[in-house]
Amino acid sequence: MKKLEEKIQTIGEVRDGNVLKVDSFLNHQVDPELMDDMAVAFMEYFKDKKVTKIVTIETSGIAPSLFLAKRLGVPMVFMKKGVSTTLCKDALCTEVFSFTKNRTYSLYADASFFNEDDHVLLIDDFLANGEACVGALRLLEKTKVTIEGIGIVIEKSFQPGRSRLEEMGHDICSLARIQAFEDGQVVFQKADQ
Amino acid sequence: MKKLEEKIQTIGEVRDGNVLKVDSFLNHQVDPELMDDMAVAFMEYFKDKKVTKIVTIETSGIAPSLFLAKRLGVPMVFMKKGVSTTLCKDALCTEVFSFTKNRTYSLYADASFFNEDDHVLLIDDFLANGEACVGALRLLEKTKVTIEGIGIVIEKSFQPGRSRLEEMGHDICSLARIQAFEDGQVVFQKADQ
Repeated sequence: MKKLEEKIQTIGEVRDGNVLKVDSFLNHQVDPELMDDMAVAFMEYFKDKKVTKIVTIETSGIAPSLFLAKRLGVPMVFMKKGVSTTLCKDALCTEVFSFTKNRTYSLYADASFFNEDDHVLLIDDFLANGEACVGALRLLEKTKVTIEGIGIVIEKSFQPGRSRLEEMGHDICSLARIQAFEDGQVVFQKADQ
Repeated sequence: MKKLEEKIQTIGEVRDGNVLKVDSFLNHQVDPELMDDMAVAFMEYFKDKKVTKIVTIETSGIAPSLFLAKRLGVPMVFMKKGVSTTLCKDALCTEVFSFTKNRTYSLYADASFFNEDDHVLLIDDFLANGEACVGALRLLEKTKVTIEGIGIVIEKSFQPGRSRLEEMGHDICSLARIQAFEDGQVVFQKADQ
């Protein structure tokens, strides 16, 4: 997605350790116009899918997911991180290792928001090693929903996340695919949309 | 806001300890259509204000804020909770006590997203004791922005949050105002919009 790539090039910040900071439009300050444009791009890619629910992971997946849910006229469910006392009843739970933060966290969702007739698009902000997505899919597997596809805002294509998801048979749409960081610059490969 | 009150009445759950669970449309599963309707209601109430930025608190403030930011054509910034290693530089920080969770957390924002020309609407999902809002205002005070108003989705009017904010001189718009919980039912008083 051209507009997203331009935004990453102009105001994203490449940090040591292959970290891309996009706090100025995605992860802390949010550009709502861009979020809605991303929703349109995801819709176009997944236009042949029947979707009844958007699922994402808090916090940074919420903004990219919300306009997509609105445009599709379906609810959005965000999985929660950490331990919540109000979520224990009927909660689905799994453990996820974050390479970025170098620690394990719990991923939760309330089972009552899913049923076997649901057709889900899973949306997340970043795909790198794939830990978060694979964790979310592990939760969703317990709910008997159908996974129609996975929408990613920024994919680090030099890391194994995409291969892992493809080997599981998933259809992936990444709006920006980063091939490499070279001298503090982002090198893109062709995005899915 | 009639539609919000109806949603609270029909699918909100009143729990022990004056807890209202709205996980089915606001805090876990999100109804994007309702979020956009809330944005319209906030816009109507604050229509005479010049607004350059929407500010909220992760996680549950993000959904109600995003459509408002989109409709106003301004960025949204969500303050973060907890400690983040990537946010330390230039980060504003304050401590907030959560009565719901009975613990203190850190509220963070990157100072670079605010400047003295900014006119801010602060949006949050719940107003009860006002700790989160007052904490967010404490952070914003350091940034020299102008606070144009505070938009709340659900106010527990029997708790002191609103009075605290009004005493600080703030203009508050609460879309649903809960006067009391009686026999597991929600009793509303007239909302601001």
